[in-house]
Amino acid sequence: MADYQAPLEDMRFLLHDVFRLPDQWADMPELAEMSGDLADAILEEGGKVCAQVFAPINRSGDEIGCQWHDGDVTTPEGFKEAWKTFADAGWVGLGGAPEFGGQGVPKGLTVLFEEMQYATNSSLALYSVLTAGACLTLNAHGSEALKNTYLPPMYEGRWTGTMCLTEPHAGTDLGIIRTKAEPLDDNAYAISGTKIFITGGEHDLTENIVHLVLAKLPDAPPGPKGISLFVVPKYHVGEDGSAGERNAVHCGSIEHKMGIKASSTAVLNFDGATGYLVGEAHKGLGYMFTMMNYERLSIGLQGTGQADWSYQQALAYAKDRVQSRAADKSLRTGEAADPIIVHPDVRRMLLTQKAWVEAGRALAVYLGGQLDAVKYHPDTAIQERAAGRVALLTPVAKAFFTDRGLDCTVLAQQVFGGHGYVREWGMEQAVRDARIAQIYEGTNGIQAMDLIGRKVLANKGEWLQQFFADIRMDLEAVSSDRHRQKDDLVRVMTSVEDHVGRWLKSDDANLAGTQAYNLMELVGYVAYGWLWLRMASNDQAGQGKADTAGFYFAWLWPQVDTLVRRMECDSQAFMAPGL
Amino acid sequence: MADYQAPLEDMRFLLHDVFRLPDQWADMPELAEMSGDLADAILEEGGKVCAQVFAPINRSGDEIGCQWHDGDVTTPEGFKEAWKTFADAGWVGLGGAPEFGGQGVPKGLTVLFEEMQYATNSSLALYSVLTAGACLTLNAHGSEALKNTYLPPMYEGRWTGTMCLTEPHAGTDLGIIRTKAEPLDDNAYAISGTKIFITGGEHDLTENIVHLVLAKLPDAPPGPKGISLFVVPKYHVGEDGSAGERNAVHCGSIEHKMGIKASSTAVLNFDGATGYLVGEAHKGLGYMFTMMNYERLSIGLQGTGQADWSYQQALAYAKDRVQSRAADKSLRTGEAADPIIVHPDVRRMLLTQKAWVEAGRALAVYLGGQLDAVKYHPDTAIQERAAGRVALLTPVAKAFFTDRGLDCTVLAQQVFGGHGYVREWGMEQAVRDARIAQIYEGTNGIQAMDLIGRKVLANKGEWLQQFFADIRMDLEAVSSDRHRQKDDLVRVMTSVEDHVGRWLKSDDANLAGTQAYNLMELVGYVAYGWLWLRMASNDQAGQGKADTAGFYFAWLWPQVDTLVRRMECDSQAFMAPGL
Repeated sequence: MADYQAPLEDMRFLLHDVFRLPDQWADMPELAEMSGDLADAILEEGGKVCAQVFAPINRSGDEIGCQWHDGDVTTPEGFKEAWKTFADAGWVGLGGAPEFGGQGVPKGLTVLFEEMQYATNSSLALYSVLTAGACLTLNAHGSEALKNTYLPPMYEGRWTGTMCLTEPHAGTDLGIIRTKAEPLDDNAYAISGTKIFITGGEHDLTENIVHLVLAKLPDAPPGPKGISLFVVPKYHVGEDGSAGERNAVHCGSIEHKMGIKASSTAVLNFDGATGYLVGEAHKGLGYMFTMMNYERLSIGLQGTGQADWSYQQALAYAKDRVQSRAADKSLRTGEAADPIIVHPDVRRMLLTQKAWVEAGRALAVYLGGQLDAVKYHPDTAIQERAAGRVALLTPVAKAFFTDRGLDCTVLAQQVFGGHGYVREWGMEQAVRDARIAQIYEGTNGIQAMDLIGRKVLANKGEWLQQFFADIRMDLEAVSSDRHRQKDDLVRVMTSVEDHVGRWLKSDDANLAGTQAYNLMELVGYVAYGWLWLRMASNDQAGQGKADTAGFYFAWLWPQVDTLVRRMECDSQAFMAPGL
Repeated sequence: MADYQAPLEDMRFLLHDVFRLPDQWADMPELAEMSGDLADAILEEGGKVCAQVFAPINRSGDEIGCQWHDGDVTTPEGFKEAWKTFADAGWVGLGGAPEFGGQGVPKGLTVLFEEMQYATNSSLALYSVLTAGACLTLNAHGSEALKNTYLPPMYEGRWTGTMCLTEPHAGTDLGIIRTKAEPLDDNAYAISGTKIFITGGEHDLTENIVHLVLAKLPDAPPGPKGISLFVVPKYHVGEDGSAGERNAVHCGSIEHKMGIKASSTAVLNFDGATGYLVGEAHKGLGYMFTMMNYERLSIGLQGTGQADWSYQQALAYAKDRVQSRAADKSLRTGEAADPIIVHPDVRRMLLTQKAWVEAGRALAVYLGGQLDAVKYHPDTAIQERAAGRVALLTPVAKAFFTDRGLDCTVLAQQVFGGHGYVREWGMEQAVRDARIAQIYEGTNGIQAMDLIGRKVLANKGEWLQQFFADIRMDLEAVSSDRHRQKDDLVRVMTSVEDHVGRWLKSDDANLAGTQAYNLMELVGYVAYGWLWLRMASNDQAGQGKADTAGFYFAWLWPQVDTLVRRMECDSQAFMAPGL
């Protein structure tokens, strides 16, 4: 197995040259202390901790898995020590609020650190990423008392966080959850119900686990507007902030899964567990979306990270594995066979991975920068425009990154031939681990519905038009020798706008659902096309960027012709056939 | 988990109405005894044995896996009994030569039985399918003595067969194998070397295992023209035909794999093992291709079979799982949520699976019929034309069926949401099991190279033109209300022919490798388009066929626009970028 190389050069190119995030940080008082040098240092150290602490226990973690015994969960050998090393160095609170002990590092930077965590050990990464997401929600919506109690130990990585949404009968459809919250004295509530698929719901890494739980109060209106959010710690927290007696929440079992086997996926039984209301009653789903939007981008990064790890392995293997002579016999005469990287079909697979990984990373940094603008920018007009951009692109990032993540891990495995199907090289684990990212945190189909429904049609396509307008403006700076690619990008954007205009006038109730996935993919291809032109046109871009941009437009971009043609379908295409 | 339903109605529609195979059999003296009624009875009984014997041990087989101990391999609990039931009923020799105890059932029928075996238990199916393939090779190229010794017990399923090609340094590139064959007395040879990835290379199902081994004689010319084929039994065979002393071939280990865990994948060490030459010296690779061509179609059927099993599960789940209201609220008023089959994006996934499965099945039956014509048809002109068709379409069937197989198992898993990622429903096993089919028996990239190189460019596109000419002729019978679909099919075929003509004149050495995968997919889409029109236009077609054909052309067929556009690329697209 090839060692993981943190893609620092590409990351620096994106931060400094393509998106110039240090300039953006300088405009925001709360990020003024972040410098480009500091960012580079953080990435370099972050890359080291991933390569040296996360990566070495990734395969053994898969083989051993989490073990459940009588309500307790044991993580695989080495995970406890790795977590301690990671937490003690302050990485869990990297993006956290400084007033409660976080490092206050902007999202434009932490996305890259998350990518590296997922690349090297997705199971271990989840404990950290969910904790960061839970902190974000608490910080945004919790009382000062809750923040003071929970945020410091969570940022320190002494406690971890979870999000408890799904119930056996309610996954996508949270409006029908049954978990109840009964008021007690003292602003507390008794939480009762069963939650399933709770990532990190039980484990032995930390002294306490802080569950964020969706439940319904006795007076809750039906449906999604009757959901409240509660903090339910595994151990009650004493006056001094220490974890004390056990709360009435227990792990009934953990799932046996296709992958991410070192991440525990728990069934949690809440039997009148003490919980504390976050924010106002009945507004829990909105609060949870604060967490979900971050987690959705984060899960997207799992796709990119695992794709990059797999790509690194496949590239090294293709340079090393010798099999068959090159078609152009002059390449390496005198030997019985050439390294397989000389074969065009192997290069097709490698270049596809490279093009997906680097564009995905670029879109993540862009989106991270937009999230920072929403949170920190002093100009409210910029803030608002960025909020629309984040809303629009979050479901695309989640779904498109993770679909490409599976594609890339499968292609990388394919480069290994039969050796990719056996455990030895780790390629099959990457496929199994990457697969979940298309499912959890809202399936990719749900992301696509979110995009077309809430993010495009609900506001008459305004956010989409703003995005495309910005792309058109950007394209003016792209040199004229790429005019064919520019023109084609504009053609596709115009076609999407036309069809969205048509859909807005339609009374076909199932049209949105019919076009949802197609639109998500179109926005993904357009965004990547824009980013490839932007990257390749940058003054600091090396030949590699121009090469890969060329490959993207020659080989991957033509997929838009299919997607554009599909926009002509109405819902009869799916609703009419009997099933 | 839903029970497996053998898709007998669809199979009968293909056999009797679409391809009218019983009429074809009547024209071939050796198949004259096969009637339509007999075929139906075989399929019905075959469906039962798969549902009742194969399916029940599929999941436990995955969980237990094969175990290696000191050179012996134990198959999972229940496999030995299942194999005996299966073999005793004569299923192993279903397509075998009657003069040695086979049933002589035509390939146009056995492909359907193979599909059902793979659908219900791909691991168990492999022991059977490889045995049938080994018998085919022995029957075609072995001496009478070898046939008399080996075929009867193999058809009876008392012995199984393997194909031993791959070595640690030689997979795709068999020209560089190192296994040696030294002449002994008595027409025997001492075989020495190491073979890896040998499916069914060691197990406890039968009294003996018959290895077909590629090796080099001392006087062998270098490269693929110096490879000979040997029969190497695990146990020496006595005069009376019984298995006796152990031969010098031993299983060093078995692989830990992503899936098909109940199929043993062995490292075999040949230490001067006694072997017998099949046919003439140095012609082994050609003989092995007799087996490989059948196995390639068979492995293609693994894709279709697993896709169908997964589709059946997903369809049942989508009708049962209740989540969110339909967009068209009138469908099931008064309930909190509807079965997810009402949601267009779920229907997109289900219809995609249905369209791929049924077209794949149709192409398999067509190809099976062509294989029968090659073998049995009295008219040599028809025989030759069928041979070209088989040569052309075999790599497409292997690669296109199995790519769609992974797509379908992944989509079916996606329909289950989080429940698809856990073991319980079996969906994740189907994905893991289906993945190997894209890799073994020649990776799909190698299939694509075989298609464009040996099957298209090497004969100036003649076989491709013949195939397209037959499609054009068939289209004349398609009713005029499908003229748009017919015209589009013709447009794409013409475009492919034009580009092939252009490629034939090119001196770009890497052009074939660049366009290989793209051409394979184009031929796949065209073949499926032709079959959907043919099926939907059949007098006996139900509404379901017309519906699914409509979906295919509305949603899946537009992929051809991408593939057609890619044909413009020369090898610079892949060779120029640095990697």
